[in-house]
Amino acid sequence: MDSLLEKFSKLGCDNAPGQEGRQKAAVLDLRGEKLEGRLVDFSHGDVDAHPPIPGTLSDFVTGVEKIGGHQAYTEYRGNGGIRSELAEKISAFTGSAIDPDQNIILTPGTQGALFLAVGANMVAGDKVAIVEPDYFANRKLVEFFGGEMVPVQMDYENAQDCAGLDLTQLEKAFQDGAKLFLFSNPNNPTGVIYSDAEISRIAALAKQYGATLIVDELYSRQVFDNRTYTHLCAKEERPENLITIIGPSKTESLSGYRLGVAFGTAAIIERMEKLQAIVSLRAPGYCQAAFHSWFAEPAGWMEERIAAHQVIRDSLLAKLRACPGVSARTTEAGSYLFPKLPPLDIPVSDFIKVLRVHANVIVTPGTEFGPQFTDSFRINFSQDRQAAEAAVDRIITMIERYRA
Amino acid sequence: MDSLLEKFSKLGCDNAPGQEGRQKAAVLDLRGEKLEGRLVDFSHGDVDAHPPIPGTLSDFVTGVEKIGGHQAYTEYRGNGGIRSELAEKISAFTGSAIDPDQNIILTPGTQGALFLAVGANMVAGDKVAIVEPDYFANRKLVEFFGGEMVPVQMDYENAQDCAGLDLTQLEKAFQDGAKLFLFSNPNNPTGVIYSDAEISRIAALAKQYGATLIVDELYSRQVFDNRTYTHLCAKEERPENLITIIGPSKTESLSGYRLGVAFGTAAIIERMEKLQAIVSLRAPGYCQAAFHSWFAEPAGWMEERIAAHQVIRDSLLAKLRACPGVSARTTEAGSYLFPKLPPLDIPVSDFIKVLRVHANVIVTPGTEFGPQFTDSFRINFSQDRQAAEAAVDRIITMIERYRA
Repeated sequence: MDSLLEKFSKLGCDNAPGQEGRQKAAVLDLRGEKLEGRLVDFSHGDVDAHPPIPGTLSDFVTGVEKIGGHQAYTEYRGNGGIRSELAEKISAFTGSAIDPDQNIILTPGTQGALFLAVGANMVAGDKVAIVEPDYFANRKLVEFFGGEMVPVQMDYENAQDCAGLDLTQLEKAFQDGAKLFLFSNPNNPTGVIYSDAEISRIAALAKQYGATLIVDELYSRQVFDNRTYTHLCAKEERPENLITIIGPSKTESLSGYRLGVAFGTAAIIERMEKLQAIVSLRAPGYCQAAFHSWFAEPAGWMEERIAAHQVIRDSLLAKLRACPGVSARTTEAGSYLFPKLPPLDIPVSDFIKVLRVHANVIVTPGTEFGPQFTDSFRINFSQDRQAAEAAVDRIITMIERYRA
Repeated sequence: MDSLLEKFSKLGCDNAPGQEGRQKAAVLDLRGEKLEGRLVDFSHGDVDAHPPIPGTLSDFVTGVEKIGGHQAYTEYRGNGGIRSELAEKISAFTGSAIDPDQNIILTPGTQGALFLAVGANMVAGDKVAIVEPDYFANRKLVEFFGGEMVPVQMDYENAQDCAGLDLTQLEKAFQDGAKLFLFSNPNNPTGVIYSDAEISRIAALAKQYGATLIVDELYSRQVFDNRTYTHLCAKEERPENLITIIGPSKTESLSGYRLGVAFGTAAIIERMEKLQAIVSLRAPGYCQAAFHSWFAEPAGWMEERIAAHQVIRDSLLAKLRACPGVSARTTEAGSYLFPKLPPLDIPVSDFIKVLRVHANVIVTPGTEFGPQFTDSFRINFSQDRQAAEAAVDRIITMIERYRA
């Protein structure tokens, strides 16, 4: 029982996006009047401001009414016809070969894919390399499965035209016995893209050391400023054991359907299916029908969505950078910003709670992405533009009230 | 890597319901002409023959169109309003007190609930008591989490007015250190109900030995012949650590929405939420709206559904029992039958494949429910009545062709 409780004590989720309501009431040093204004929850995107791909709901309804039981009960790895469709569309997008029978599994969200991919590639005691900063669940998954985390630093603040991953440290991790490396590209929370050279080197190192790679490409369709995005799965140097994860929850706003996809090495997909059989059986059957509209959006829809987000990004960045002591790297893909705060005279963890109760703004603490990111926070700027701008104004007012 | 592959070699799912299409082609001893007739897949219920609760689809559509982002992104344990509704309805059904903030979590299907419940209550090396026969995933979950299974026999064939659990063996399991016991009631695959005396004794033993109980009540609303069903969670003798699982996937035919519920001890629900945060984030947000119609079915709907299933049960049982050497205990609740076959001159595992390719009938091998059930198979009789009757006729014709 002690080891059970100890294990779960490392898995807190009160600071995770959307969980803020469960935090115990804290005694906070509230200064000045409460800043009124529409609540903006920067912990995730606003699917009302940026609605789902048109047609998804009617695909769902058709799934229930016309297809019925065949849509409700699919193979654990997902409906065969939908796997075929997706294999073709994702092959075209990434430039990699995907056999719908062997190389792809549909999952309950990309979180589901990530859980299965990690669970199917490690056992307790294994060393797993993780980027700092990176998506908080990566760290928690390794902890849950009893692995040993080997952090690899990413100097996103100073790198130019690359993510800034410390490739020497990555090689050292492989040399020291890490057999699994997982990372997000674009990086969550910083929104930076790995360069072609970085991706080639990661692939080559994994191959050289016989390591397995899990690449989370969740936000890879939303690339700004015509930047080049490199899919590791299409690289000649790629290792034998490779899983790529993607899904329609972010740019396409389909999060409410809980849909994700993992594709790659057949033997891993098979283990992931065995695990899915005991975790949740399958991605929600009726929801799988909503995959039809993905990668089949109306002409111009995706370009418009990206352009709308670029406008919001630029507006919020200009506001943040005008505040002395605040810095943030420009988002290259996806909808995340990871601003750094100037010194404050209360802990940043308290400041973030103050923002919620005293300024109607929810952000995610930097420490969720690595213990050292005590002076940063993440925002998802996929929001109503005006509401987001007003919320950032309130954040800046609050920074002034608490500046050290 | 070896320990990883060994772990997954124990988690086969090719024989699991719905996975039959993935079996490698076998060389089978096919006798006589193929028996034609509409394919009946007894591995799960037919939601076209017994459609979902009326109103569920429109609840879903309202969730997407009217509620939007608030429905898409819920707390990991599920939307607060829906938890309140369900806590009230399930409290009334079971006679136990459920605080919506502390004692309930919404999950992706009851499989999701089972995974979280087991994962939140054991670590590698723990002893876990499991009934034989019982739902196949129970065994696989214990294997996946590195536990040691302690089987407890259930003499369902000879017991009367009770499930036939060997309570002495259960106490021995607790004495030998099992700290967790999970079981389904009604039992899957036999369809028998635990008596009030059995439930009281299980509760008292768990309390006495400080064990945690997980009670899977998935099929507990579909009780035949006015039998008494006892909810362990309402018993005075219940232990401190208790999780009950229920969901609308079976009787109510909502499986395509992937919805389940777990309720019970607050500390366990909290660990389950932490685990859900890294497994799949939440039960599919829009689908959660479909919970509204559950336990709020139109007047007479549930009675009619139960009556329709009782007719099918009786018809199939009469056919099966008319075949010399076939026996089956009468289903007391739920839609499962677990018939025993007479000696055949091919292995039952082959016979089941013959049924699929030569008689258009899919059943689930008894060995999925315990290694010793080599001469039984499970059927879910929630099917179109005429199609099911014709399929059972074909099974009987096949038994004659292969009788030893």
